[in-house]
Amino acid sequence: MKKSSSQISHWQQLGKQMLYDTSYFQLWSRRMRSPSGHFESDFFYIDAVNWVNVIAITSENEVVMVEQFRHGIQETSLEIPGGMLDADHEDPEEGARRELLEETGFAAQRMESLGFIHPNPAIQSNRNYSYFSENVTRVSSQQLDIAEDIAVHLIPLAEIPGLIESHQITHALVVNAFARLFIRRPELLTR
Amino acid sequence: MKKSSSQISHWQQLGKQMLYDTSYFQLWSRRMRSPSGHFESDFFYIDAVNWVNVIAITSENEVVMVEQFRHGIQETSLEIPGGMLDADHEDPEEGARRELLEETGFAAQRMESLGFIHPNPAIQSNRNYSYFSENVTRVSSQQLDIAEDIAVHLIPLAEIPGLIESHQITHALVVNAFARLFIRRPELLTR
Repeated sequence: MKKSSSQISHWQQLGKQMLYDTSYFQLWSRRMRSPSGHFESDFFYIDAVNWVNVIAITSENEVVMVEQFRHGIQETSLEIPGGMLDADHEDPEEGARRELLEETGFAAQRMESLGFIHPNPAIQSNRNYSYFSENVTRVSSQQLDIAEDIAVHLIPLAEIPGLIESHQITHALVVNAFARLFIRRPELLTR
Repeated sequence: MKKSSSQISHWQQLGKQMLYDTSYFQLWSRRMRSPSGHFESDFFYIDAVNWVNVIAITSENEVVMVEQFRHGIQETSLEIPGGMLDADHEDPEEGARRELLEETGFAAQRMESLGFIHPNPAIQSNRNYSYFSENVTRVSSQQLDIAEDIAVHLIPLAEIPGLIESHQITHALVVNAFARLFIRRPELLTR
């Protein structure tokens, strides 16, 4: 299965306009023509800078996790550190280091890329990059802005699959990062 | 780690208004007051009906996958069947059967729930439910609407981790469904 063998043709973009800018993301409408040329329609999508998150584990194999109130679901959510890359083309790895330090006070040495995913290819244009770092250590207190209230939890890595299965971890981008890690490094779950 | 032990307080909603309705999803603004009462701000979120997707495998352990042009990323994407639940409170399992049949012509017998995830708790209110079905069979042709052009691929289940690792599968909600399946049924990857 190679993408280069695709049987699916691309649509043609006829124009686009921004409908609303929340400053965190923008709602756009795009006028598209089907490959056959016989159909035209508007398609809506959310544009945003790329996002990043990081699985950081201590020398005790504990994941540095954050819990915070999330305004989309109006509930608290257990997650790994992450957020938006700075708009001035911040390197994803630097963004991961920054978010880890700001949200938890932990610092990473070596960072391993876990690749990227598209949060939703149908209605979002951006990517989320994920990283993995071992032997992280606490070097400072959290650096939170006024709208952030984040509790740090250290959770054994081997407990993560059970927390996903029992819906205590429900953030898709967090589950994605762990999926990438467990595919590449399954031995981490048993040590 | 129990959510009931949360140290994080909830914010208070002061009001909300819909800013734009694309008919597939709605952009909302919500006025919120922090737990301390000292901070107020507007938070933006995307509201949508719940979504569903389904990992359907044949008696040969091949996953029934779909490839289509995705307007968010302006590229083709390799995915499992899925979509929006009908707005009239469609049961997620029924939605999964419907999407599988419409997009691929394959029919499922028994469906196993793989739970749900939140696509993005920070800026989306809805859930994506995932299902798993074995021994699916082709019973009809696809039933596509005018805006859909979907190629069906049968891909051995054991190849899925490699396709995720190599970024040939990049849809977060698709990777989530496989993550849930592989956590619960790791033996499926080796048979």
